[in-house]
Amino acid sequence: MQSIELEQLIKLVAKLPGIGQRSARRMVLHMLKNKEQLMHPLARSLENTAAAIVDCERCGNIDTHSPCSICTGDKRDRAQVCVVEDVADLWALERGGVFSGLYHVLGGTLSALDGRGPDQLRIQSLLDRVAEGGIKEVIIATNATVDGQTTAYYITEKLQDYEVSITRIAHGVPVGGELDYLDEGTLSTAFAARKAC
Amino acid sequence: MQSIELEQLIKLVAKLPGIGQRSARRMVLHMLKNKEQLMHPLARSLENTAAAIVDCERCGNIDTHSPCSICTGDKRDRAQVCVVEDVADLWALERGGVFSGLYHVLGGTLSALDGRGPDQLRIQSLLDRVAEGGIKEVIIATNATVDGQTTAYYITEKLQDYEVSITRIAHGVPVGGELDYLDEGTLSTAFAARKAC
Repeated sequence: MQSIELEQLIKLVAKLPGIGQRSARRMVLHMLKNKEQLMHPLARSLENTAAAIVDCERCGNIDTHSPCSICTGDKRDRAQVCVVEDVADLWALERGGVFSGLYHVLGGTLSALDGRGPDQLRIQSLLDRVAEGGIKEVIIATNATVDGQTTAYYITEKLQDYEVSITRIAHGVPVGGELDYLDEGTLSTAFAARKAC
Repeated sequence: MQSIELEQLIKLVAKLPGIGQRSARRMVLHMLKNKEQLMHPLARSLENTAAAIVDCERCGNIDTHSPCSICTGDKRDRAQVCVVEDVADLWALERGGVFSGLYHVLGGTLSALDGRGPDQLRIQSLLDRVAEGGIKEVIIATNATVDGQTTAYYITEKLQDYEVSITRIAHGVPVGGELDYLDEGTLSTAFAARKAC
């Protein structure tokens, strides 16, 4: 019923994260109705971006050049390195504007289930960066999931051999969060990490 | 923080239906991790499909040629025309394999709120097709929404001047549906349209 071109496009769109067959069909129909404003520009932008974007050889961030603009930025504090799982996490921290040091993107977490070991992550290159000297603090900002925590412990362990302070971002009740909506894990963490007022 | 190429691509992806900034970022990062398997093929597929697909001049379906393969299909019953709002609805009926006649895609519904009148829809071309002769039954399959019903009534009214039987697909309890989960509108329609066993 559908042409080969359409079927193939829908199949490709359905490979995007969070997109099923139904949403893919809807998105393709929407694009076909907006060929000039959306479909052609999107095709060109995909090609341009795929050609322009490379991984930063130092930190694993993505940018149009390597080392990336964060690694080469002259306003960044080179004594602090924040370790994140993914580029999306780096973007989130940059959007928040909470950190002005350098980053190290692991490219995922250790995972027994998915069979991801230390060699599949950028852990050795982190140790190499620390060994080079100049870094005074490594701030671990992996996600508060089981795999994220495991990865944090592993990295902390590995960094013991180096003269660097190792910290971890705080976990607790999100600002603006209501206790009633939080899971027990967050609540017990928040209690255990309580501070004097 | 992000390069111009990335920002532009994320902005374009976020224009797709049901996709916000956050999903767009996630999708773009996923594509950048799969340049060869996903990003380049998707860019090419978008260009190919945009170039290949045209609207069918007779029924409003989309295909690589006009008239479309349904309009020219030699196994289709030319005495029946099913009127649908959108190409997505046509696809749904074809997937179901429930209908072997021709279609007429309106391209939306009448809508007072969105200011869509009969001239913005393919209604005149439906009347022209019926006037040409050969069509014995027009089956109206617009959605069971307020706008869909209004459009169905309007088309029924317009078709009174022609010698053609006008039918509407049945509304009621979906097969496999449980009464407990259905809204009052569906339930009252199902009762009003009850049949002798």
